[in-house]
Amino acid sequence: MNVDGQSYRTIWQTKEGGVVTIIDQAKLPFEFVAVDLTTLQDAAIAIKDMWVRGAPCIGATAAYGMALGIQEDASDAGLTHAAKTLTATRPTAVNLRWAVDAITKYVQPLPVGARRDAAYQRAAEICDEDVAISSAMGDHGMVLVKAAWDAIGKARPINILTHCNAGWLATVDWGTATAPIYKAHDAGIPVHIWVDETRPRNQGASLTAWELGHHGVPHTVIADNAGGHLMQKGDVDLCIVGTDRTTRNGDVCNKIGTYLKALAAFDNDIPFYVALPSTTIDWTLDAGKDIPIEERSAREVSHITGRTANGAIETVDILPTGSTAANPAFDVTPARLVTGLITERGVADANEASLRALYPEA
Amino acid sequence: MNVDGQSYRTIWQTKEGGVVTIIDQAKLPFEFVAVDLTTLQDAAIAIKDMWVRGAPCIGATAAYGMALGIQEDASDAGLTHAAKTLTATRPTAVNLRWAVDAITKYVQPLPVGARRDAAYQRAAEICDEDVAISSAMGDHGMVLVKAAWDAIGKARPINILTHCNAGWLATVDWGTATAPIYKAHDAGIPVHIWVDETRPRNQGASLTAWELGHHGVPHTVIADNAGGHLMQKGDVDLCIVGTDRTTRNGDVCNKIGTYLKALAAFDNDIPFYVALPSTTIDWTLDAGKDIPIEERSAREVSHITGRTANGAIETVDILPTGSTAANPAFDVTPARLVTGLITERGVADANEASLRALYPEA
Repeated sequence: MNVDGQSYRTIWQTKEGGVVTIIDQAKLPFEFVAVDLTTLQDAAIAIKDMWVRGAPCIGATAAYGMALGIQEDASDAGLTHAAKTLTATRPTAVNLRWAVDAITKYVQPLPVGARRDAAYQRAAEICDEDVAISSAMGDHGMVLVKAAWDAIGKARPINILTHCNAGWLATVDWGTATAPIYKAHDAGIPVHIWVDETRPRNQGASLTAWELGHHGVPHTVIADNAGGHLMQKGDVDLCIVGTDRTTRNGDVCNKIGTYLKALAAFDNDIPFYVALPSTTIDWTLDAGKDIPIEERSAREVSHITGRTANGAIETVDILPTGSTAANPAFDVTPARLVTGLITERGVADANEASLRALYPEA
Repeated sequence: MNVDGQSYRTIWQTKEGGVVTIIDQAKLPFEFVAVDLTTLQDAAIAIKDMWVRGAPCIGATAAYGMALGIQEDASDAGLTHAAKTLTATRPTAVNLRWAVDAITKYVQPLPVGARRDAAYQRAAEICDEDVAISSAMGDHGMVLVKAAWDAIGKARPINILTHCNAGWLATVDWGTATAPIYKAHDAGIPVHIWVDETRPRNQGASLTAWELGHHGVPHTVIADNAGGHLMQKGDVDLCIVGTDRTTRNGDVCNKIGTYLKALAAFDNDIPFYVALPSTTIDWTLDAGKDIPIEERSAREVSHITGRTANGAIETVDILPTGSTAANPAFDVTPARLVTGLITERGVADANEASLRALYPEA
């Protein structure tokens, strides 16, 4: 998407020399810094230190990380080393492992001398495929936004609430939940986005607000507590969120707090959509109750980073001495609260039959 | 309640000389500072600058503020001046105006020379009456906590979720939502409190966690997003919150985000109680939809204060440059989601008939 009028992806290959550039998302929203990755080690650090985050963006970085590793050593040993180095950065990241495997399988049959160029080519394809998936979700989701706008006689902008960052920063471009928003905005359908702050890590206030703002999409940040009241008042036309994993019955695991917004949307007859590339559908799980929920560090709750009046970046502890915090990172929204699942093949109802109709091969 | 083993109220008269001491709540949770108020002006500043907050605590401070003013000038002109000075600090605070009127009406018929002592005496009574109300709510609410504990065979502590600070800091002692918690804890019923952070002003993380911790009540701070998930997991036995205003049909206006927790409690069959002194029942309003919701400064969302690693108190801006925030301060929880209203006269169902049965004179 655009950053102040210039088009960007979250990752791109800058030169024939094989340098890959990413946006250092750990510095957002306070600084916009593009960083060159020139070695396998650079790519591993970028993933481990969360300069890149979001499953698709991590996958793309891992794919290019493999290419950087093969550029250094294209032998079978080099391949194994690169794969191990990258996989160790975030052991539970499914997309990371998938991308590492995809590059490995693609180049392993080739002569050593042909592997480097093939790896870069395949990494570029992986990025393009991700953009195509997001773009398709955006096209399908935009239809829903357009319909909502038509339904009110195009009288005012459509108010969309989103949670966390399922934005272009989390993918290679367009995002998942934001793809319909950007498509609508770019097509001249006026939208205004309620951006949930998304405590404790504040990905809404820091990342979603940043990317919407720099692309030029009208938006307002709200405390996570505010969404229900806005829905009661009629100030939300629809909700669109992302998902980390959706089980085959349509239960949606997403950032903590998503369930509360889905309850409020249901209570106020407001459509609640989840945008998901089909890679995040877990066909092996019957229902969301089977998903283990990660408990993350209490420090994410107790400590917040921001900009002081002097412009310095500072981290402050907001808890009384002696108080502790719990930090479940995700929750599960039951399928009964989900209006529809926006996939790259179209919009499914939140149930297995509807999902299987779109993905008969799954 | 106790602060590290010593018993406190939020306001007390220290000396015959008429000095009144308060806890400077603006410094919490980082510093515990008791401040002497020796003049009317001191009391006005304490209210205006939110060294004291919470309707009953503000009322008590205003009552003693009148006494301080009368100590300076007991004439009718002095009375009027004190009343005007205090009322101007927070023009919409109903309890403040009530306390100012109560002292005025009490001393005005008296000879000028008798007014000072009468004012101090009436202010002390107002404080004692508030404590009695909170204590009675605590006794009625404790029965519910005890019943929940009995129902699980006293097998483990009872997990109670609360939102914002309806604690003893907001009253003279005991609090409203916390009164049943302190009564249960002091009676040896084991409780563990989930403390909603309560963005944007973080009264849960800063005030409720502080007061529970210093009294010795086990508690854990959570992001406002987490409560729904904890309820789904069975980790919440009941919710108790306070209220700023409850309409006669039982709709509850309280800190923004309360509605979301009530929805989650309802969805998971968890009792959701509201503790309210009868003074917060608005018999003039049919329903919560008639309550105007205050929109507060965006700065409360964008800026957070905490302690740096060096121990300094610092305020940081968490939003990207150019992004704005909205900040509705309250929401309305419909009566249908409320299990019961804990008043000083007992527990009512959330409807007019049940409230009127407790308050036939209203």
